[in-house]
Amino acid sequence: MKRRSLFKRAATAVTLSALLASPLVYAQEKFTLRLAETWGPNFPIFGEATKNMAKMAEEMSDGRLRIRIDSANKHKAPFGVFDMVKAGQYDMGHSASYYWKGKVPNTLFFTSMPFGMTAQEQYAWFYYGDGMDLMQEVYEPHNMLSFPGGNTGIQMGGWFRDEINSLEDLEGLKMRIPGFAGEVFAEVGVNPTNIPPGELYTALERGTIDAVEWVGPALDLRLGFQQIADYYYTGWHEPATELQFLVNQDTWDELPKDLQQILRVAMRTAAYDMMIQSVHENAKAWASIKEEHPNIQVKNFPDEVFKAMVEANEKLLEEAAEGDELAAKIIESQEKYLEDARAYINIADRAYLNNMAEIE
Amino acid sequence: MKRRSLFKRAATAVTLSALLASPLVYAQEKFTLRLAETWGPNFPIFGEATKNMAKMAEEMSDGRLRIRIDSANKHKAPFGVFDMVKAGQYDMGHSASYYWKGKVPNTLFFTSMPFGMTAQEQYAWFYYGDGMDLMQEVYEPHNMLSFPGGNTGIQMGGWFRDEINSLEDLEGLKMRIPGFAGEVFAEVGVNPTNIPPGELYTALERGTIDAVEWVGPALDLRLGFQQIADYYYTGWHEPATELQFLVNQDTWDELPKDLQQILRVAMRTAAYDMMIQSVHENAKAWASIKEEHPNIQVKNFPDEVFKAMVEANEKLLEEAAEGDELAAKIIESQEKYLEDARAYINIADRAYLNNMAEIE
Repeated sequence: MKRRSLFKRAATAVTLSALLASPLVYAQEKFTLRLAETWGPNFPIFGEATKNMAKMAEEMSDGRLRIRIDSANKHKAPFGVFDMVKAGQYDMGHSASYYWKGKVPNTLFFTSMPFGMTAQEQYAWFYYGDGMDLMQEVYEPHNMLSFPGGNTGIQMGGWFRDEINSLEDLEGLKMRIPGFAGEVFAEVGVNPTNIPPGELYTALERGTIDAVEWVGPALDLRLGFQQIADYYYTGWHEPATELQFLVNQDTWDELPKDLQQILRVAMRTAAYDMMIQSVHENAKAWASIKEEHPNIQVKNFPDEVFKAMVEANEKLLEEAAEGDELAAKIIESQEKYLEDARAYINIADRAYLNNMAEIE
Repeated sequence: MKRRSLFKRAATAVTLSALLASPLVYAQEKFTLRLAETWGPNFPIFGEATKNMAKMAEEMSDGRLRIRIDSANKHKAPFGVFDMVKAGQYDMGHSASYYWKGKVPNTLFFTSMPFGMTAQEQYAWFYYGDGMDLMQEVYEPHNMLSFPGGNTGIQMGGWFRDEINSLEDLEGLKMRIPGFAGEVFAEVGVNPTNIPPGELYTALERGTIDAVEWVGPALDLRLGFQQIADYYYTGWHEPATELQFLVNQDTWDELPKDLQQILRVAMRTAAYDMMIQSVHENAKAWASIKEEHPNIQVKNFPDEVFKAMVEANEKLLEEAAEGDELAAKIIESQEKYLEDARAYINIADRAYLNNMAEIE
């Protein structure tokens, strides 16, 4: 059986099964799943989410469900995770859905959309709205299940060496900003480039690029941009970057019901935990940046820039929806969900945060 | 053994254990835990959190860990949950920590504090700051473990029949607002009363009270306040109401490691899920209230009211910290955590929500 070859099975239970035809003993079969993650070894926060998930699954199953994590240095294919899990070379993956946009355009919608939902709103859409069903509609033809895999919170708009006061200031600006957000920025005059993370600091320092978008304080701090750029812009392009667990469908079908549920809950908890850990790590990092670099100014993009980006985003979404029924359905679902969720969040979270900021 | 009597044990595994001295088979022992919740049967959102937790635990353990939920109509002691779990009459409870303030004053700090942390910030304090350790320090002498049990999100400031324009307007105002928030309100002139939920609507309609604080749109909608009050005030007093799972320490010690971990993760996920479900249900309810009652105005308390409440809150906290080292330690930990977390949330979530509101 091809499917069986996906697993390493332990023989422990075999003698018992032979002795006693009890379903309790049958359930003791052991499974080791192999997971490929896009990140390098010991990548902070993102890589902790996979380890957290694996630890919970192993402990809850009393060792019956083990997950062996291969980082990018091992499998050498950070952006091959989709294909490897699809083909069954790996049972699971940990990555980001929008990386597969070139292969399957509608995977774009399950990470985070410019001007879109925040983490809480997006989890609500996934778990209590239509999000999970729509995501599964996109992944099913590729023999995979997809689950939320951890949230970074609102990504910052990036580090700029010069202040942005107008649309003109963006004209020809060289900026590291990949993906769909880069396309939006390109529409308003920016020259988006993609540069490997290890070269970003030097590129910004030497003026090869004028600005760089990375993640948020916790991960940005480690790359050192605060030492060479004075302007830190607030976020717009990825308000709730959700990572993703992929599970090969055959692997999933092979697991007994209790281990499926253990895996499902471990992934769900690890994802939520990462959202909360991101708040913690970002708070710590931002406190340290503020203290060591009091010169750094947090800025919002000027209104005209914001408006131009919103328009560019709408134009690109319309293009995506054209001739693709599923894309149109997903975009509509997200926009409708966001409308109601945000109306409530505005009278709850936003009002509270603003009132509190005023009395400080 | 007294401890053993807490459990109903299934005999299924006994023959196997006799046959084979295998730890795998030993682990098949079954446990049924009894949980008392403060809420009535089918209480929305709060009661769904316990059912969600029990379902996850049962499915992940393949039926080895069952949780039998007794609602308040059964055990007749909604505010006796602390004592019943402490004494081992129940293995678990689902309630809110601040209900035990009269018994153990420092339980106050683990639900939500006026002008305090939001749900994400508070989860970060619990899980990545000192929150869990401090909470355990409070509950350990009572032979219990305490875990986060689900968040309502920011509670609204309440329904008022008349607009509040000054501190004077609060003078002698009769309002349903219980607990510590009621004490804060009392300091600024309000006459706080506690009225059973079933009588609130009539009390507000007949003018027995002038205002009522309940939870947020989802739960408020069911009580119908939107039909008889025009002013809905934004929140300040419970920015992140966290419910609580209690577990009797002897019960916990009796569980094998894998079931402890299954229970821990099921509680953690159910708590997070409730935070997300609250966003969903509040968004739906607020959309419906807005549509059916377009006359309703969302208001912030005037600055002078806000400032007076902040001062009253600080005064009450100082009193709580006086002569109680643990209280002082908890208050300091929360204030310090909030400072850094909010500084980050202000450049991330608040900036984003404000920018988005401006372009609408």
